[in-house]
Formats: sequence, C-alpha cells, structure tokens
Amino acid sequence: MAGDGNYVVGADVGGTKIYAGVFNSAMECVGTARVSTKAQRGPDEVIERIARCVRDAVDECDLKLDQVRGVGAGAPGAVDPETGRVIFAPNLEWKDVQLKKALEKQIGLPVFIENDCNICILGVYERELGSKPQHVVGVFVGTGIGGGLILNGELYSGFNKSAGEIGHMVISDGGPKCGCGNTGCFEALAGRAAIFRQIKAAVEGGQKTVLTEMLGPKLDDLRSGDLRKAIRRGDKFVARVVEDAAEHIGVAVANLINILNPEVVVLGGGVIEALEDEMMEIIRQTALKRALPGTAKGIEIIASKLGDEAGIVGGAVLARRRTK
Amino acid sequence: MAGDGNYVVGADVGGTKIYAGVFNSAMECVGTARVSTKAQRGPDEVIERIARCVRDAVDECDLKLDQVRGVGAGAPGAVDPETGRVIFAPNLEWKDVQLKKALEKQIGLPVFIENDCNICILGVYERELGSKPQHVVGVFVGTGIGGGLILNGELYSGFNKSAGEIGHMVISDGGPKCGCGNTGCFEALAGRAAIFRQIKAAVEGGQKTVLTEMLGPKLDDLRSGDLRKAIRRGDKFVARVVEDAAEHIGVAVANLINILNPEVVVLGGGVIEALEDEMMEIIRQTALKRALPGTAKGIEIIASKLGDEAGIVGGAVLARRRTK
Repeated sequence: MAGDGNYVVGADVGGTKIYAGVFNSAMECVGTARVSTKAQRGPDEVIERIARCVRDAVDECDLKLDQVRGVGAGAPGAVDPETGRVIFAPNLEWKDVQLKKALEKQIGLPVFIENDCNICILGVYERELGSKPQHVVGVFVGTGIGGGLILNGELYSGFNKSAGEIGHMVISDGGPKCGCGNTGCFEALAGRAAIFRQIKAAVEGGQKTVLTEMLGPKLDDLRSGDLRKAIRRGDKFVARVVEDAAEHIGVAVANLINILNPEVVVLGGGVIEALEDEMMEIIRQTALKRALPGTAKGIEIIASKLGDEAGIVGGAVLARRRTK
Repeated sequence: MAGDGNYVVGADVGGTKIYAGVFNSAMECVGTARVSTKAQRGPDEVIERIARCVRDAVDECDLKLDQVRGVGAGAPGAVDPETGRVIFAPNLEWKDVQLKKALEKQIGLPVFIENDCNICILGVYERELGSKPQHVVGVFVGTGIGGGLILNGELYSGFNKSAGEIGHMVISDGGPKCGCGNTGCFEALAGRAAIFRQIKAAVEGGQKTVLTEMLGPKLDDLRSGDLRKAIRRGDKFVARVVEDAAEHIGVAVANLINILNPEVVVLGGGVIEALEDEMMEIIRQTALKRALPGTAKGIEIIASKLGDEAGIVGGAVLARRRTK
C-alpha cells in the first residue's frame, strides 16, 4: 500500500520549466517530475503540461490522484489567490488566465494558486524559519530578481496582487537599462542575466578570464556555477563582478530593511545557491552598513538552503494549509 | 459650558517645535498651541514642554484637562506603540525614552504614542480617504523625507518599529551624500535640505535667480514657498531644480508601488504643501511611467490637503481609537 491518501502536490510553473513534487503527511518529498513549459504554445497547452507534470509526479511515487488532497502552484506574475486567476505573467505572456479553474477541471483536485515568489517564501518560512517570525522578506536572485513578503505572519500581495516586485526597485537611477524600460533597476544590476551580460561584454572587449578556457570564447552555456569555479581558480575579474553584484544586493536589502523592517531577510534563487560562499558575507555587511542605524538591530540576513525545491515545498505548504 | 468631556488632544513632537490641537466629539479642531522643542535641553525638559503645550491648547479653548479623554502624540523616530517608549529619535537625540509613562504622570491622562509619519498617515486616512483603502503609503517631504504605512487596514511598523524609513531608500547609488552616511538616498535628492543645498551651491557658483533679489545674496531664511514664488516669476533655474526633485520623488513612488503595491499613495509635508501645483503632475507621471506595467493600475497618487495639521489630526484619531 503506497499511502493513506494524505498527500499534497506542490508545483512551480516557471518561464522555461514546470516542476512538481508530491509530499506525504510528514511533508517529505516522495517524488518529483519536470517538463518544459513551452509558453510559446499558449495558455491552454501550458495548463495541460502542468496537469501532466502533476500526474507524472504522482505516478512516479506509485500513487493515484485520488490519494492527493490538493495541489498548490506558483505562477510567475500577479496572481489573485482568492480566485486563482493569473492577472498577468510577462514570462508566460499570459493575461487573465483562470489557472485554478482550468487545472481543477484537468486533474479533478482542489488547486490553489499564488505568485511564485510568495510560494517560495512560504516554503522557506515553513521549512527553514523555526522561530516563525512575523515579518519576512524573501529576495530571490535568478535570471531576474523577485521578492516574496510575509507581513504580520501572512503572505502580502497588495492592491493589484503584484507586491514584492523588488527586482524593479530603482537603486541606481541612470544606471544600466532594464527589460522593464527603466534604468538602474536592482535586477539590471544583480540578476543573473545582468551579471552574464557584463561578463560577456568585458570578454568581447578583450578581458581575460578562465571562463573562456572553460567554455570557449563565446561563453556558450555559461551558468552561475561556472562563476564559482572561476573564482576558486583565482579569477580576479569574475570575483570582482560577483562582488559588485553582491554589493548591489546588499544595497537593495538595506532599502528593504529601511522600508519594511522585517525580522528576517532570506536570500534564495539560483545565483545565491551557486555563489552563497562568495556573496552572502558581502550582502550581509553591505546591508548592515547601509541600513539606517537602529533599523537593522537583531535582523537576520540568511541564505535559504532549499534552492530549486523552495517552489514545490511552498506549493505543498499552500495546498496543506488550504485543505486542512 | 464649554463641552461634554468628550475631547481628545493630538500632539506632534518635531525636532524644532511641538504642536498640539484639541478636537471635539465631531473631530473638529477647537484650539491649538505651539512651543519650541528645545531638544538640546534633554528629554525631561522636552517632556515638560509637551505637557505644557497640551495644557495650553486645552486652556486656549476654555476647557479643563478632565474634559479630555486622552492624548495621542507622534514622535520622530522608532516608537513602540505598545509601551509608548521612544526607541530612538535622532532629531531629538533620544534613546530609550519612556514617553508615554512620563507624559501620563505629568498630565494625568491616558497617552498613546506612535511614530510621527505613522500618525500623519493615520490622520490623512481618517480625514481624507473616504473609501478606506486597505493599503496606503504616505510620503512626507519636509526637511527630510519620512514614510507612513497602512497595510491591511492597520499601521505597520515592523520588527524594530522603524518601518517606513523611505527617505533612506537608495535610488541613486553613488549620488549625493546623505546625513545617514549613504549616498543617493531619496532624502538626499529630494528633501527640502537637499533642494536648498543645491540652490545655494549653484548661486555660490554664479547661477542667477530671482531668489537672490527676493532674499539677498546668501538666501537667508529661504523657504519652500519662495521657490513657488520664484517659479511663478518665471525663474527657469528654480523650476528645473524643483522638477528634478519631483522626478526623484516619482522614482521613489514607483519603487514603493513595485514593492508594496498600495491602493493609494499620499504625498504630504511642507515641500508638497508649498509646491503641489509645480510637483504633483510630474510625480504622478514619473511614478506611473516607471512602475512595472500592471502594478500601478487603478492606484491613486494624491496630495494631502492637511499640511501641518496631519500630525495633530492623526494624534487625535489615535487617542479617539484607543479611548473608545
């Protein structure tokens, strides 16, 4: 007998891949599945792929859908958690998609939708923050940068359900151009795309780096982990670029401490996962130095250990909370 | 007979002056008083002066203290609203001052303490925002810049009770130095002190302006209202400085919309009061242009009409709420 019917599924719908995990009553992950998103095929097909990914994950651990109580899913954009509607999600090119309804129809289970960064901070909160602080800010540094807010113990999403867009906080007005049309956004200074762009431009300009030895002159298939390897091989140029990004993250964290005064700031996402040892101390020191005296007293600035799992853990937490 | 014993007092404790107002049961202001703060004389003396100011305001409208139900007061710094302790207030040079206890002893009435910007946004909320929006951000531009946050219908002050320090949000890293030690803080770009410093430096550098005709070559006693007069007399230099400041405020408002996604952003403080016609349209347009598409939909960006009264109105609202 595979289980007692007390499972939940967490799903993380990203711009490039969909990732689902099945969790038992002890909230241990007992099986996962991944499929590519294929956003270009439009919402209907993506929704079918999410449903398939959920079914595959359940099948992977020899369970049946009727042993699952519910599914919690994160979508990259503004989401109305009440209705489960995705209001807009630029990475998916979605506008007004009734994700909850459509998914429930496909898989016949209760589905709960949240913004992906909110889902991640919920996962971190339940899994990693034993003291259950009242106010937590999550800073997720991947290709772009997103934020998740827990204020007064609850997820906060604001008037248009789009709060936490910290990647588009301008911290260096007049600085590098951002995809959003602004200049000097946090994401345009410290997101993975910005870091890679800077490195590639410097290499084109003649900068020497071990990265070209590792990956060829065009730096094809460059990943955050390659930066770590280059730094550990003594590459001062890459070290400087990563330090700069960490300082920008520190300034952004100081801003968030001054504005929201959370008890805990959690850093996560692929860039932090790959470069935790290289970045966290700089982020912490910069943030504490630049926050207003007194405001940062006793505030913890930590890195999540959940990495890629934060989305599915958070989705499972959401499903568990809502199906109690 | 002067009244029915259903009065409250609101008090605004600033770095240079203390202002108190008495409000009747219809929450109309029936009398006020002002005294200078004299912060350099230390907390005990300032507390005596607050008590005197409250007594003077009550006397001014021919009332007695026993006709007042309570006093609500705003202090410029981090305040624990539960205990009424001022945790730190740099402008007063206070640290750990039991303001509530000390004031209650002096005037024999229940006293309630809050951060001054929170008090102001509370006043604006009750007096000017009839629709009672759930999420409101107040941006108060005076000598410095402070913020007040109402989230989920309640004042928000965070872990160290110092949330809303939006004046020290870095928006132009590497830009002008701020009193807090950072560079490029919002306050160092758009607060009154920053605007005046810019004008005075340009005048010293030979810039022509009608301000020197109005006030003499050293611009003694320059006030925000003088900038308005200069602009209306066609002074393009002053117009440009004020436009720049308004653009910086617009960028900061866009950041706050991206992070907190409030329903209403209220601008207040002496600079906005004096230069509303010159600044508000620029602030609004810059904020809407620079906020992430979708996040600003339906959000109102308005100027408060309360001006200097916001603090005493908010204090009275606080006292009224707490003595119900």
